[in-house]
Amino acid sequence: MGRTHSNGYKRVGDFFPELEYRPELTAVCSRREDKVQAFANQWGYKSFETDWKKVISRDDIDAIDICTPNNMHAEIAIAAAQAGKMILCEKPLSRTLAEGKQMVEAVEKAGVENTVWYNYRRLPAVTLAKQIIDSGKLGRIFHYRANFLQDWTINAALPQGGEALWRLDVEAAGSGVTGDLLAHCIDTAIWMNGSIKDVSAVTETFIKERVHQETGQVQKVGIDDACIFHCHFENGSLGLFESTRYARGHKALYTFEINGEHASIRWDLHDLNKLEFFDYADDSIVRGWRTIHVTDGDQPYMNKWWVPGLSIGYEHSFVHQVADFLKSLETGEQCAPTFKDALETQKVCEAVIESGASRSWKEIED
Amino acid sequence: MGRTHSNGYKRVGDFFPELEYRPELTAVCSRREDKVQAFANQWGYKSFETDWKKVISRDDIDAIDICTPNNMHAEIAIAAAQAGKMILCEKPLSRTLAEGKQMVEAVEKAGVENTVWYNYRRLPAVTLAKQIIDSGKLGRIFHYRANFLQDWTINAALPQGGEALWRLDVEAAGSGVTGDLLAHCIDTAIWMNGSIKDVSAVTETFIKERVHQETGQVQKVGIDDACIFHCHFENGSLGLFESTRYARGHKALYTFEINGEHASIRWDLHDLNKLEFFDYADDSIVRGWRTIHVTDGDQPYMNKWWVPGLSIGYEHSFVHQVADFLKSLETGEQCAPTFKDALETQKVCEAVIESGASRSWKEIED
Amino acid sequence: MGRTHSNGYKRVGDFFPELEYRPELTAVCSRREDKVQAFANQWGYKSFETDWKKVISRDDIDAIDICTPNNMHAEIAIAAAQAGKMILCEKPLSRTLAEGKQMVEAVEKAGVENTVWYNYRRLPAVTLAKQIIDSGKLGRIFHYRANFLQDWTINAALPQGGEALWRLDVEAAGSGVTGDLLAHCIDTAIWMNGSIKDVSAVTETFIKERVHQETGQVQKVGIDDACIFHCHFENGSLGLFESTRYARGHKALYTFEINGEHASIRWDLHDLNKLEFFDYADDSIVRGWRTIHVTDGDQPYMNKWWVPGLSIGYEHSFVHQVADFLKSLETGEQCAPTFKDALETQKVCEAVIESGASRSWKEIED
Amino acid sequence: MGRTHSNGYKRVGDFFPELEYRPELTAVCSRREDKVQAFANQWGYKSFETDWKKVISRDDIDAIDICTPNNMHAEIAIAAAQAGKMILCEKPLSRTLAEGKQMVEAVEKAGVENTVWYNYRRLPAVTLAKQIIDSGKLGRIFHYRANFLQDWTINAALPQGGEALWRLDVEAAGSGVTGDLLAHCIDTAIWMNGSIKDVSAVTETFIKERVHQETGQVQKVGIDDACIFHCHFENGSLGLFESTRYARGHKALYTFEINGEHASIRWDLHDLNKLEFFDYADDSIVRGWRTIHVTDGDQPYMNKWWVPGLSIGYEHSFVHQVADFLKSLETGEQCAPTFKDALETQKVCEAVIESGASRSWKEIED
Repeated sequence: MGRTHSNGYKRVGDFFPELEYRPELTAVCSRREDKVQAFANQWGYKSFETDWKKVISRDDIDAIDICTPNNMHAEIAIAAAQAGKMILCEKPLSRTLAEGKQMVEAVEKAGVENTVWYNYRRLPAVTLAKQIIDSGKLGRIFHYRANFLQDWTINAALPQGGEALWRLDVEAAGSGVTGDLLAHCIDTAIWMNGSIKDVSAVTETFIKERVHQETGQVQKVGIDDACIFHCHFENGSLGLFESTRYARGHKALYTFEINGEHASIRWDLHDLNKLEFFDYADDSIVRGWRTIHVTDGDQPYMNKWWVPGLSIGYEHSFVHQVADFLKSLETGEQCAPTFKDALETQKVCEAVIESGASRSWKEIED
Repeated sequence: MGRTHSNGYKRVGDFFPELEYRPELTAVCSRREDKVQAFANQWGYKSFETDWKKVISRDDIDAIDICTPNNMHAEIAIAAAQAGKMILCEKPLSRTLAEGKQMVEAVEKAGVENTVWYNYRRLPAVTLAKQIIDSGKLGRIFHYRANFLQDWTINAALPQGGEALWRLDVEAAGSGVTGDLLAHCIDTAIWMNGSIKDVSAVTETFIKERVHQETGQVQKVGIDDACIFHCHFENGSLGLFESTRYARGHKALYTFEINGEHASIRWDLHDLNKLEFFDYADDSIVRGWRTIHVTDGDQPYMNKWWVPGLSIGYEHSFVHQVADFLKSLETGEQCAPTFKDALETQKVCEAVIESGASRSWKEIED
Repeated sequence: MGRTHSNGYKRVGDFFPELEYRPELTAVCSRREDKVQAFANQWGYKSFETDWKKVISRDDIDAIDICTPNNMHAEIAIAAAQAGKMILCEKPLSRTLAEGKQMVEAVEKAGVENTVWYNYRRLPAVTLAKQIIDSGKLGRIFHYRANFLQDWTINAALPQGGEALWRLDVEAAGSGVTGDLLAHCIDTAIWMNGSIKDVSAVTETFIKERVHQETGQVQKVGIDDACIFHCHFENGSLGLFESTRYARGHKALYTFEINGEHASIRWDLHDLNKLEFFDYADDSIVRGWRTIHVTDGDQPYMNKWWVPGLSIGYEHSFVHQVADFLKSLETGEQCAPTFKDALETQKVCEAVIESGASRSWKEIED
Repeated sequence: MGRTHSNGYKRVGDFFPELEYRPELTAVCSRREDKVQAFANQWGYKSFETDWKKVISRDDIDAIDICTPNNMHAEIAIAAAQAGKMILCEKPLSRTLAEGKQMVEAVEKAGVENTVWYNYRRLPAVTLAKQIIDSGKLGRIFHYRANFLQDWTINAALPQGGEALWRLDVEAAGSGVTGDLLAHCIDTAIWMNGSIKDVSAVTETFIKERVHQETGQVQKVGIDDACIFHCHFENGSLGLFESTRYARGHKALYTFEINGEHASIRWDLHDLNKLEFFDYADDSIVRGWRTIHVTDGDQPYMNKWWVPGLSIGYEHSFVHQVADFLKSLETGEQCAPTFKDALETQKVCEAVIESGASRSWKEIED
């Protein structure tokens, strides 16, 4: 994620020249000196560190971006807040709800700007979906469904843990697909459709044991390989969520669909510039799902890029988040999702994991 | 459904000339004399009846096809079995599991041929999916998901009950989308992926009251408008099913997808001649989902119809089922799904409804 | 084609009960007695003949349906007209323009009802396209493009001629893809977009020699394997047409698209129940191509079939043409395309072939 | 285009760290001082000029990138070559073939590195298509077809000429869609399928007069609004090309398809990360068009970007072209398409325009 974030910081000024602030890449930090030095050179960081505490103690640094494995989020964020730094934290906010609460408390106490990189909100098609929903075009909502399907861990010979595969190690990641993939789906869902009231989940670990890269031993796999849950939203609609890393043929198939009384919307990360929209108000004989190619200047963020018809990609969502964060520094309005917003996703994730373990419905904590 | 079945009987001989038996449309039965007479004339039935018991008592009739609302299935089927008639029964088998068991007992005791019209099995693309799975190409199965989405009952002014809208009346239908739509999904799923072990469901009735057409009164709606459940299959895979009549923009979107270790398959009723197939064994740089236009002579049933590239429709599934039923009379092998096969779907439906009501997991009865 | 037509006659009464006339399958004719007898039995024809002249001379026959290879169309049609029979002729009308003119003259002189089976006009999505265009929604037309791509003759070992492969024999077929496939595209185009003024074509025969099944000799292939032409329509729009039997991967990909000032439409035979429609009048931020699933009761012909969302197939276009023909007998209005209408397509085909041969533009004869 | 190119130069080092050279943005040039200064600030150019001749005379500049309207290409390129600068020239190479020849002569005489920004070659899916074709998988080629459809000039009130609309002014642009859009299609086609032998075209100007922004007068429109041509390739295949700015609903629909004996490929700029591939060698019952999501590390350029499933966009093609150009400086191999390569496209464009004007076939000059 260091590359997508760095790319976001470096490009924002070229494409959002109206912004008052422009990021400076003062220091990059990672434990391995050779790697971090090479990264600093490649990306043009002015300096590097191997101890994150040093970064936080530096006076020439205003904002800390946390791209570590999940098990480091809380400690770094809390220290950064105490040092009065602004914080941009990779998602999910934390491994556990308890950690997340401490993080929220820390940033609120310190009064520092904070945001979490739920970057998919800032893809133009997704932002457009939000605008359509907010316009009231859908009417009463009946259904929200989302999935995030991958297939990269099917191979039983794949180890767990270590730098490249910490996402398979429950100690580092906190959970499997729930925190890694469903967290995205839940963040978008709450943003679009409001709070979730209760959940009923099933989780599964298909490959029960994998070699751990740090110990060299075959160890139990503690993460969820797959997770499905249904839920009630506060607005009375039904939710359905599924995530897995065992859906052969899908690399990163994040899709969502929302069905309202008058209209419906759906979206697919594999085709990220497009939004599908069905409007029952259309004349009945020519009514159908529209495929909107979201690349026009009057659509979200697209006046910053190219002429209509020319696509942008995944990474642009990070540039947009940087731009929105910088803008929030000008306006004084917070850049959503804040740690507090992201805590709501964390509550749902925790309830989902508990529901899967206990085979029962769980209410979402207020 | 009387039209789709009649069409099946009338066309089978033209397209399956090799069959030993060819159906004769001896009598059609319905309570309203004017309507049934018109239907008999239009479709070429030799006679008509207004009392189904008379049909069963006639010696010139060998097979009874039950196309009534669900609440009549058991009574007619049991009587027909006792009269020694072959029986072709519309899906779902019955309103309740208890009724279904009596029906199975009746046909088994009588030793009469019997089948249930889960017609979607006989769409060429669906049959091809089954063949691919049976060939072992998918390897270990991880996921099965299906949905059946409609939008025709969103209007709160729509009444319930009566000839046209008995599907909204719990007394006539037994359940809502579970028996009407999910039953199709479950039948296909069990056929493709084996038995279901347990289920956890949520059901919802969005419009709580509707005028009943028989009483003229506003009455509570007893059916499920929407139903979602996840489950475990006996083979260890996870299942996910959703059905609703409140998904604006979807008229009859029945889709299924199955993800195996080596390959995946998906299908969509709105595009019924196509099957999508992903094979991980393909050379990696040109690997992708294939869209198979299932219209070639070496694909299921398609040597009976037109040249490659020319589509067939929904109704052909019924012609195929008639053909397979007639063939079963020649071979002596039963025509699946029999009443007994369909009882398994009934068990899952009953468990789903119970799980939704009790907010708890339900095991599927053996 | 005998099967598709017979099917049309047999089904029309079941689905169009309001029609005054209902066809009777009095006789079927083909040169080989064993085959024609079997066909008559299978399809329920009351009698059969092996000499078409006998059919025409029979008093119990009112209408003649010509499904022969193209080289028999003119002779049979002219004789049938002289005998006062109604005529339904397979497309293309004739091998050559000269033959076509004689046929038109014959039916007009005799005053007999006549129609040509350009069946694709009667697919609901295509008829809907025509209705939209006629409504004026598109405004000034700029472009019309169509293609018909197949891949069944790529194999050089495929012979030409004989019963199954007369389409590859120029003597029987008159031309290759131009008369067989482009004729469909041209018929639809003229119907939708008006007359064609001039054409510039290229034709190609990729496999130059094939064994002829009647002589057993390797003979020159006289047909066009592929044909591309551009043209001007009388309304000032540009046309572009392509057809081939060498487009690997396409079985019967007939598509058309029409671009107007305000809206555009496209369609694809592989997905025949769908129509794509783009309306510039839509609100700009949610504007996009709509996929209309043409299966609702208020869409052309669909009130005759199933509930919304359930597809029909290729063969239904023939049922619709029979219905429209029968209706024309009631109303006295001609059933388009008549022989005279089809002659316009013939003029374009002839000009296309000539243009390809002479490498020059050809005006379409008035 | 200044933004896409600048973006290419700025990003290449971050994503292609292995390259020996890394571009420096020394100066940007444009006639209007206020605009060029702002651009230099925004993008980080070290200096700016308002006279291009000054840029060429500067010793601290090694390479000249020409992003002007077409009518300036030749003069600047020739001067730059004479000054011994490397040249990267926007497409099309020139307004006319005569200009193009002078440009080729100039760079060859000067021995300077040169390339033309036919950037679409460097989209991963397009490069993959080229690799598949070169592997021989397609066998003998029968058909190549491409189109580039837009709709942005339908409004008759749109003026011509000036900074923003020079593409509508024949003096500045040389031609309309032929040089602007078909040039892309032709470049890709020649690269994929070899040389074109002869062409037959039709061109059209739908809006005959527009206000010219420089004169304020209504003036004749000299460009082609639409152009269609068919052709023969040297390898015996047929080509078909269409371009227009009057295809309502298409913003930048560049598609190509190539049909070979054994396999076919198609691609669409609106969905630029995907490649469709049909392989007749697949097992017949599961044969179909594959949709390849070209985002894996073993696919062209994609090891530089994100994990599988995550899309890149239009602008990345420019980053790739910069990378390939820089690489060519290391290896000494030329970076295709060179001016000489691009001259072949220019020859086809010129023949197309002449063919349209003369309504006759034109041979392509050797």
